Amino acid sequence: MFNFNPLIKKVNPSPGMPVHTGEKKVEEIKVSIIRYDNKTLNEKIITITEKNRKQSIDNIYNSSLVKNKRKKSQVLWINIKGLHDAEFINEIGSRFEIHNLTIEDILNTAHRPKVEDFDKYLFIAMKSLSLGKSGGIASEQLSIVLKSDIILSFQEGGEKLFTALRNRIDNVKGRIRKRGGDYLSYAIIDTIIDRYFFIFNKIAEQMEDIEKELLENPSHETLKKIQELKNYSLIMRKSIWPVRDMMRYLIYEDLPIIKEINIPFFRDVNDHVVHIIDIIESVKEMLTGMHDMYLSSISNKMNEIMKVLTIIATIFIPLTFVAGIYGMNFKFMPELEWKWGYFASLGFMLILAGIMLIFFKRKKWL
Amino acid sequence: MFNFNPLIKKVNPSPGMPVHTGEKKVEEIKVSIIRYDNKTLNEKIITITEKNRKQSIDNIYNSSLVKNKRKKSQVLWINIKGLHDAEFINEIGSRFEIHNLTIEDILNTAHRPKVEDFDKYLFIAMKSLSLGKSGGIASEQLSIVLKSDIILSFQEGGEKLFTALRNRIDNVKGRIRKRGGDYLSYAIIDTIIDRYFFIFNKIAEQMEDIEKELLENPSHETLKKIQELKNYSLIMRKSIWPVRDMMRYLIYEDLPIIKEINIPFFRDVNDHVVHIIDIIESVKEMLTGMHDMYLSSISNKMNEIMKVLTIIATIFIPLTFVAGIYGMNFKFMPELEWKWGYFASLGFMLILAGIMLIFFKRKKWL
Amino acid sequence: MFNFNPLIKKVNPSPGMPVHTGEKKVEEIKVSIIRYDNKTLNEKIITITEKNRKQSIDNIYNSSLVKNKRKKSQVLWINIKGLHDAEFINEIGSRFEIHNLTIEDILNTAHRPKVEDFDKYLFIAMKSLSLGKSGGIASEQLSIVLKSDIILSFQEGGEKLFTALRNRIDNVKGRIRKRGGDYLSYAIIDTIIDRYFFIFNKIAEQMEDIEKELLENPSHETLKKIQELKNYSLIMRKSIWPVRDMMRYLIYEDLPIIKEINIPFFRDVNDHVVHIIDIIESVKEMLTGMHDMYLSSISNKMNEIMKVLTIIATIFIPLTFVAGIYGMNFKFMPELEWKWGYFASLGFMLILAGIMLIFFKRKKWL
Amino acid sequence: MFNFNPLIKKVNPSPGMPVHTGEKKVEEIKVSIIRYDNKTLNEKIITITEKNRKQSIDNIYNSSLVKNKRKKSQVLWINIKGLHDAEFINEIGSRFEIHNLTIEDILNTAHRPKVEDFDKYLFIAMKSLSLGKSGGIASEQLSIVLKSDIILSFQEGGEKLFTALRNRIDNVKGRIRKRGGDYLSYAIIDTIIDRYFFIFNKIAEQMEDIEKELLENPSHETLKKIQELKNYSLIMRKSIWPVRDMMRYLIYEDLPIIKEINIPFFRDVNDHVVHIIDIIESVKEMLTGMHDMYLSSISNKMNEIMKVLTIIATIFIPLTFVAGIYGMNFKFMPELEWKWGYFASLGFMLILAGIMLIFFKRKKWL
Amino acid sequence: MFNFNPLIKKVNPSPGMPVHTGEKKVEEIKVSIIRYDNKTLNEKIITITEKNRKQSIDNIYNSSLVKNKRKKSQVLWINIKGLHDAEFINEIGSRFEIHNLTIEDILNTAHRPKVEDFDKYLFIAMKSLSLGKSGGIASEQLSIVLKSDIILSFQEGGEKLFTALRNRIDNVKGRIRKRGGDYLSYAIIDTIIDRYFFIFNKIAEQMEDIEKELLENPSHETLKKIQELKNYSLIMRKSIWPVRDMMRYLIYEDLPIIKEINIPFFRDVNDHVVHIIDIIESVKEMLTGMHDMYLSSISNKMNEIMKVLTIIATIFIPLTFVAGIYGMNFKFMPELEWKWGYFASLGFMLILAGIMLIFFKRKKWL
Repeated sequence: MFNFNPLIKKVNPSPGMPVHTGEKKVEEIKVSIIRYDNKTLNEKIITITEKNRKQSIDNIYNSSLVKNKRKKSQVLWINIKGLHDAEFINEIGSRFEIHNLTIEDILNTAHRPKVEDFDKYLFIAMKSLSLGKSGGIASEQLSIVLKSDIILSFQEGGEKLFTALRNRIDNVKGRIRKRGGDYLSYAIIDTIIDRYFFIFNKIAEQMEDIEKELLENPSHETLKKIQELKNYSLIMRKSIWPVRDMMRYLIYEDLPIIKEINIPFFRDVNDHVVHIIDIIESVKEMLTGMHDMYLSSISNKMNEIMKVLTIIATIFIPLTFVAGIYGMNFKFMPELEWKWGYFASLGFMLILAGIMLIFFKRKKWL
Repeated sequence: MFNFNPLIKKVNPSPGMPVHTGEKKVEEIKVSIIRYDNKTLNEKIITITEKNRKQSIDNIYNSSLVKNKRKKSQVLWINIKGLHDAEFINEIGSRFEIHNLTIEDILNTAHRPKVEDFDKYLFIAMKSLSLGKSGGIASEQLSIVLKSDIILSFQEGGEKLFTALRNRIDNVKGRIRKRGGDYLSYAIIDTIIDRYFFIFNKIAEQMEDIEKELLENPSHETLKKIQELKNYSLIMRKSIWPVRDMMRYLIYEDLPIIKEINIPFFRDVNDHVVHIIDIIESVKEMLTGMHDMYLSSISNKMNEIMKVLTIIATIFIPLTFVAGIYGMNFKFMPELEWKWGYFASLGFMLILAGIMLIFFKRKKWL
Repeated sequence: MFNFNPLIKKVNPSPGMPVHTGEKKVEEIKVSIIRYDNKTLNEKIITITEKNRKQSIDNIYNSSLVKNKRKKSQVLWINIKGLHDAEFINEIGSRFEIHNLTIEDILNTAHRPKVEDFDKYLFIAMKSLSLGKSGGIASEQLSIVLKSDIILSFQEGGEKLFTALRNRIDNVKGRIRKRGGDYLSYAIIDTIIDRYFFIFNKIAEQMEDIEKELLENPSHETLKKIQELKNYSLIMRKSIWPVRDMMRYLIYEDLPIIKEINIPFFRDVNDHVVHIIDIIESVKEMLTGMHDMYLSSISNKMNEIMKVLTIIATIFIPLTFVAGIYGMNFKFMPELEWKWGYFASLGFMLILAGIMLIFFKRKKWL
Repeated sequence: MFNFNPLIKKVNPSPGMPVHTGEKKVEEIKVSIIRYDNKTLNEKIITITEKNRKQSIDNIYNSSLVKNKRKKSQVLWINIKGLHDAEFINEIGSRFEIHNLTIEDILNTAHRPKVEDFDKYLFIAMKSLSLGKSGGIASEQLSIVLKSDIILSFQEGGEKLFTALRNRIDNVKGRIRKRGGDYLSYAIIDTIIDRYFFIFNKIAEQMEDIEKELLENPSHETLKKIQELKNYSLIMRKSIWPVRDMMRYLIYEDLPIIKEINIPFFRDVNDHVVHIIDIIESVKEMLTGMHDMYLSSISNKMNEIMKVLTIIATIFIPLTFVAGIYGMNFKFMPELEWKWGYFASLGFMLILAGIMLIFFKRKKWL
Repeated sequence: MFNFNPLIKKVNPSPGMPVHTGEKKVEEIKVSIIRYDNKTLNEKIITITEKNRKQSIDNIYNSSLVKNKRKKSQVLWINIKGLHDAEFINEIGSRFEIHNLTIEDILNTAHRPKVEDFDKYLFIAMKSLSLGKSGGIASEQLSIVLKSDIILSFQEGGEKLFTALRNRIDNVKGRIRKRGGDYLSYAIIDTIIDRYFFIFNKIAEQMEDIEKELLENPSHETLKKIQELKNYSLIMRKSIWPVRDMMRYLIYEDLPIIKEINIPFFRDVNDHVVHIIDIIESVKEMLTGMHDMYLSSISNKMNEIMKVLTIIATIFIPLTFVAGIYGMNFKFMPELEWKWGYFASLGFMLILAGIMLIFFKRKKWL
């Protein structure tokens, strides 16, 4: 019922020796290396297994895409999909001069979203959300290392995040080809943030379902669904709140790595983030309202049950008593001898029942 | 029941290519161009359909109202009603040198209210609320681009927002004719904000209705209405909160585009905004109070039902038992033979019932 | 039941043309003009009707009290009681060079408390609370225009606010005669704030009544009273919260109009304001506690009702069954023939009832 | 039940003429004058009645302890116990050059804790809490006027606050003898703050009692006790929150009156204050938890009652019906003639009852 | 049930004379002295009893590890396990020039986590949490005195906190051997913080258990467990919140004692702290959700009980009435004489019961 994992994940207890703490989500690590400017575009994709690890790293580092001197406007993006091989990530880290703590944060997939400024690069960690197969929300960590025009991104690998973004890079005339590495990092962040809106669509659908259930046949199951959505909004809030501080940092800290001309784009993402937070708060309040509706309809049901019981019992108990009276075996009971006694008693009972019904009508129970 | 749309609207998932994301609210786009100073006033209204789009844009741009050199005190206001034709809006944007992101924000009608300072202009987005036909709250986006004395405003088109404002401009002696473009933008914002108070009047009416229902005949429907109002106040809060920051920005940032002399007017709008927020908070607390009253009256009803059942059952069950005793068929039951046995038993029952009634009276159940 | 008016008042929808938006609370406008220093004191009271309006204004403006050159230490206080004649207020405003927006705020009695610094004067708006006739809280707006040693105050007129203050001015040796216009404005504010404590006394009394009701005979009415007090505290909070910011502004902004020597007095008022806010929060929490007590005693009552029903039913239903058994008409029922069968059955029933009673005793239901 | 007094006390409605607003807690005012440095210690105790007031004031002011020129390291502490004689306090105030507003604050015992910096002295007001005789919390105001090395403290007089502190001063080698007047004021504040922990011990005891009651026999009384503790924590919070700001002011404002070397002691008190606030929040949440437990056990009781009723009724109502059938007087009822009809019917009833019991067992109601 | 101790501990009421306020957790005090740089490592462990106290202190202070002049890169760590001997701690304090107030804070184990900057050293106090034997959370105080490269740590002694850390120091190539005393203090803090995650694992397990109980057989016990977890999260929050401010202080205050190069490590701990706070908030909301689920399932149970009672009673009460009718002893009752009267009445009853059943089916009660 409650899906703890995205909320309480185990955290690597021994800092100092980077270990991967999440699940293994892909079999092989895929590294895609792209180098582009507004004219050229080169790409290389390397698959890493445990066996060819060492050689592959050399492969990556010595490939012309990485090694050749880049012109000022050229962007190099290395995307690594799959984090289970800690040794490989460590090696990549040391080659690209990434701080040991950053490597730990990349490998520890239970980390909180954050941005950190190491003099030589900017480190960004975010949560990418998606709908799990069983309907729940799956959370995946995306880490970005931004060294002016070299960008390394690390994903756990469960989802195809960057297909659309990759296609946009193919377009020679696109903004992305002209604006440098900071714009690419904006595009990556934006891709992640936009996924939140898809989840909202799913949540909105489920809320409509719950609404119908509340109207037609509210049950304990309905409440479970409401709780589930509450937990989802909890996960989303936990994933997006820190991004707000992160975006502010990127926008207002005057970082040399982010060009003045690209700031409006980061501001745009920030607007989306604030909008998401707004929606989450609204969703939470609406779920609380649904909860109240549920409680009210349950207690309404109870009231109805009690009403039926009370009406039936209140009408028949006195009647039964009257019947009981004339069922007594006293020797001397004058009424019993009367010719019309039986019918008189039936009539009396009818009148009694009638009075009761009028009483209930007045009480608006009928 | 719950009206999600104003809360969770779809957001354009692909930044980079401005697309209109809201519903199409009018058939034709209407562009009204007004140019005025404290002496002259010229106006031109152009209707744009898909066919005459290209030509119309030239028409707008080359009209003497837009093209002729303006004197220092002259204000040019272009109001565009209807946003469904993204291409047209894009074209307008590029002619008036509006940033691509601003165009996206204008077209994405699910945006959060905000103000943004692009060096050449100030961009303001707000939500204009109105009462929908089915009683709910309809939300419409209004965007303003303020370039010193050129003002472009973009409305979705569902509502006639500016009739009163337009009339005020006709008045040659009005303040609006003397104070320039920033005053006009104040007047536009003020028009939007004042609409919130009309909604409050409607909400107040509905609250009075609910109050009566709570006193007379509270039902599950009453709670639904309370929840609905809660959702309305949610929508209003979501629409007005960001405006607060917006107004503060306009007032305290010392923007060159807003003249010192007009600041008190913006401060006045800000007072209204804060007042609206205050009222929303009060409404929320009063609705919570109503919810409590509802719950209490439901449980009171339940208590009353239980009381009736208990009184009837508690009186008649023992009596029925007594009647049952004398309905037994034992051979040797002395009472049955007594002459006055029957009446004695009836008397005994009466006394029993009397004791019960006194007991209930003491318990204050009667 | 719920008193909306003080919470949601209509607000003048058309800024630009000052109109009075509240109720007309007095028939005639009374203007009292007082001019004093630590030696002299002159006073003039003028009554304004619609007919003599024009002449009266001249009267006020040209009276020696207003027109004559004042010595440095002399204070001129013009108190206007009654705001329904917008034209008169407008005229006063233009004579004393008060900004149009200030006039609007004076006339719009639904305004939020605030302080505003127009270079030439300080504008202060507050809510004066009093107990209405029907027991509710009545709210009235008091506006102060402070131009160094000229003070204009505007009251709606429903209440005699300044009797005590007026008497204190009569006292030649009083602090008020020596300390100038800013001290007078402090004294006015202090008068308004002190009225809040009287309301607290009333609320405390009502809370004690509710307490007694909760102990003796809690009913749905009790909850209504609790809700009413909650609404009162809502009104008070809404009226006092903005005053806090206002006082801070007066104290910390180093306004030239408020003399250093009088700051401690404003600080003293601020202490009162913070104290009031504290009390309101406490009152709110205590009312919540009372609400909980109410709910608990209602559910206790319910439990007691159920207990009585259960005890009676549980004792007599089995007994009635036994009686039913021996009321059956089978030909062959050996017990019926026994001589002591009847008494044996009665004895059996007694034992059964006794067992039940012991059971209930153990359950602590008796 | 609810103890309003410490929450809503009457406040002096007429500022300008200091009047004592609390209860008279002692018969006679006791003034103790102590003058000490790290070598010498002199003390004088004067009792003031209405008759000897004037003379006593002269007595105080002219005593060698007060009048003689003090050496740099000498501290003069005048502690006044009993505030009911406003005239006396006023006189003391004017002799020691205390601002009129400070005198008012000293006499108005409903004041909020605060610190105020008058150029010549520092004024500190605090609430000293103690356990009242009837078990409630009694609140008393303590005011301190700190003029470098002259300290005046004013207590209402209900409690012996300073016995332990006085003893510490006797100790020639104690820190208190060497560190000057600011250290003494720290010691006074610390004495007051430490009393809060004693109250927590009492509250903890009561919470343990409530816990036991919740486990054994929860009743409406239990809830009353919980509410009472909630009110206590309300009083405590109200008394301690402002002290936090006060301590911060004393620590961070760089007041000349507080020596750098003594700052760590004030910081230590501040730690205690923050700790107290923490505990109050925890206590509040635990009381809320207890409230929930109470509600749950009440509804559990209800459920149990309903279960018993349902089991008894559900078993016997059908049986009684069966008995009723064979109690009918139809001429032709074949079963009645059967030899074993009676026992067959009894057996049938037993089986019916057995089925019911199995049903209840399955439902886990038994 | 509620475990008060970690929340409300007694606090030393008499400041000025340091006394140990917690429980005695170990029999003997163990002092371990370690001195290391990136090449050498020396260690000495001394056990202190009351008898050898004086001598042991000399032993410590005069040992070559402590006394010999240290090279720039050498770190001296003295860890003291056991705080019950106040005299010993006082002596240690005076030898290492620790302020009296710090000694008090070390001995007062109910202190709030904090950091304090005494010019000569930095004092850090934290709470180390662990799972108590009886399942509850045990809290222990850890104090650190950091004087550039001398570190004194004081633990109550109930837990073996530093085994893993000690092992890491043994590793000659480890980061810890090269980075100086501030890194060691980071490592100590990190060790304490990481323990919180173990507690979360335990809480997550218990939440899963509760979840199962909620699904299968919710009872009052389930609520008790939920409350217990709420209290745990209360304790955790109380222990971790102040650490946040503490970490910020260490990171942003530019303390000379913490080297620039080690700041990222403190930042890393800070991330963990913020993460812990996030998780606690999530746990709290999930527990609230569980509470709601519990309440709902309890009221569902109640509804079911009521339904069974109502169905049984509503079916059989009218039938019993019919049977009662024909049990009456009137002389003239035509039906009784009919041959098929008995079977007709039985048939009528069957039809009546059938109608009821259809009615219940429609109501969805069956």
